[in-house]
Amino acid sequence: MKLASFNDFRIGVVHEALVHDVTACVPSWLDAMPDQRMRWLIENWHDALARVQVAARTAQGRPLAQVKLLAPVPAPSHVFAAPANYEKHIGELGERAITKKGRSAREQGFFLKAPGSLVGAGDAIYLPRGSQRRFDHESELAVVIGKHGRDIPRENAMEYVFGYSCLMDITMRIEPGTGEEERSMRKSFASFTPMGPYLVTADEVSTPGRLRNRLSVNGEIRQDANTSELIVGIEELIELVSSVLPVRPGDVIATGTPAGVGPLVAGDKVTISIEQVGEFTLPVIEAAVTSPRAY
Amino acid sequence: MKLASFNDFRIGVVHEALVHDVTACVPSWLDAMPDQRMRWLIENWHDALARVQVAARTAQGRPLAQVKLLAPVPAPSHVFAAPANYEKHIGELGERAITKKGRSAREQGFFLKAPGSLVGAGDAIYLPRGSQRRFDHESELAVVIGKHGRDIPRENAMEYVFGYSCLMDITMRIEPGTGEEERSMRKSFASFTPMGPYLVTADEVSTPGRLRNRLSVNGEIRQDANTSELIVGIEELIELVSSVLPVRPGDVIATGTPAGVGPLVAGDKVTISIEQVGEFTLPVIEAAVTSPRAY
Repeated sequence: MKLASFNDFRIGVVHEALVHDVTACVPSWLDAMPDQRMRWLIENWHDALARVQVAARTAQGRPLAQVKLLAPVPAPSHVFAAPANYEKHIGELGERAITKKGRSAREQGFFLKAPGSLVGAGDAIYLPRGSQRRFDHESELAVVIGKHGRDIPRENAMEYVFGYSCLMDITMRIEPGTGEEERSMRKSFASFTPMGPYLVTADEVSTPGRLRNRLSVNGEIRQDANTSELIVGIEELIELVSSVLPVRPGDVIATGTPAGVGPLVAGDKVTISIEQVGEFTLPVIEAAVTSPRAY
Repeated sequence: MKLASFNDFRIGVVHEALVHDVTACVPSWLDAMPDQRMRWLIENWHDALARVQVAARTAQGRPLAQVKLLAPVPAPSHVFAAPANYEKHIGELGERAITKKGRSAREQGFFLKAPGSLVGAGDAIYLPRGSQRRFDHESELAVVIGKHGRDIPRENAMEYVFGYSCLMDITMRIEPGTGEEERSMRKSFASFTPMGPYLVTADEVSTPGRLRNRLSVNGEIRQDANTSELIVGIEELIELVSSVLPVRPGDVIATGTPAGVGPLVAGDKVTISIEQVGEFTLPVIEAAVTSPRAY
């Protein structure tokens, strides 16, 4: 099933180019905290599924083009992310890879992105106004956790996966002379974690460890890889994260990006596309307001 | 006012050694998501205050020793944290400070800690079972955000502060040969962000920029500083964070630690104490379960 968050955090089931509103399947007390609807649905999926299926069949479909798609999990507790997790990407880091002795996600663990940086397929990527810095795209498969877990061995890890989504990890690059800014900050500007277009439940993704995964800018392919090339696979990432702290329903794990990372500038259009999971395109825009602290 | 989260996310007002249960002042639909009660109360403080005051006067007080104190904001959207933010602490970093050219919080920005690493004054610090790594204490003043804001200039920043709390930032240290593990992971083990004992509303903290701030281990003072020595002050930290993404009610900003960072081992008792804000002591314990991935 393809689940969408849209408009004011309504929940939809997407079938072909139509979205069927199933918001009535989540309790009405969530109207006071609508950004938590999808987390509730994930946590209560077993009980809610039959109702969602009926509602999806009976609700009239609205064309996708008429709704604004949000990040499918708009307010997770955590967005975990693997650093350089494809050999070729580490290679292209050049000098930085040498100083880091080619260390991969296995040695580096995970970093955090701010949930407040999430946007959906109906939004845009906003670069800080007037910035002279370089901003890069990274293309990643996102894994969404389905249930609470701690110290999950990799052998059981897939039981904890609710579904998958496409995720762009947008990054402000470190520049010589600008200081060693924290990675979690450079990747947490509002809109720097586009996710979508939908949350595809795990039963619809037959080979999560073998998915072609591409990103293009203005129609030109920049990244083209396969999740089979991940250094630290999905199971091991779940083991890794849950060895540090409990994972919760709705938590997002971005699995790392392949070679081909490159710059974005205002006016660009960026497309991410992952087999079995989906595709979406976002415009890159300069933010409307200049911040009191310039980047 | 001193606000506490306790037991199963109940809300209390603390007066002397008694906690007065005011949970009835938050809507009952939050019973389904009780860890969101304090965030709701912060966001709706203006409307709820009079009711909370009445409830605090009429509710019978329970001795603090009879409740389990949780992190006062148990599930914020974000825990932002300033890296080395006192000159003396940067000094003690020695070689690392040299390679980093003495860069402070101003150049490094902020990092993120996982909300899932929060615990309260009634809990403990759990070290990974059987680990040979070094785990350090850091003592910090926590600022809790009261309202939504973006691009907040430092001149107005204090209007966004709801209150203050004591926060320990527990860290797994990098060791030579272990790889350059991500900072946000090393600081996000479950229980590595003790916060409490209460959330003290801003009106009760007359000089947040001039508070003595101490941490001791087994009764021996390890850190003793004053928030007047912060390199990046509270106002500038709020400007910094909100220039990257919107801040939300309940968001926590840990303001950075002074000199005196040192190791913790199982059996230690750690006390944090901040003028006008409070004090609490936690035991350090080895986790009960060995993780499939050892640290």
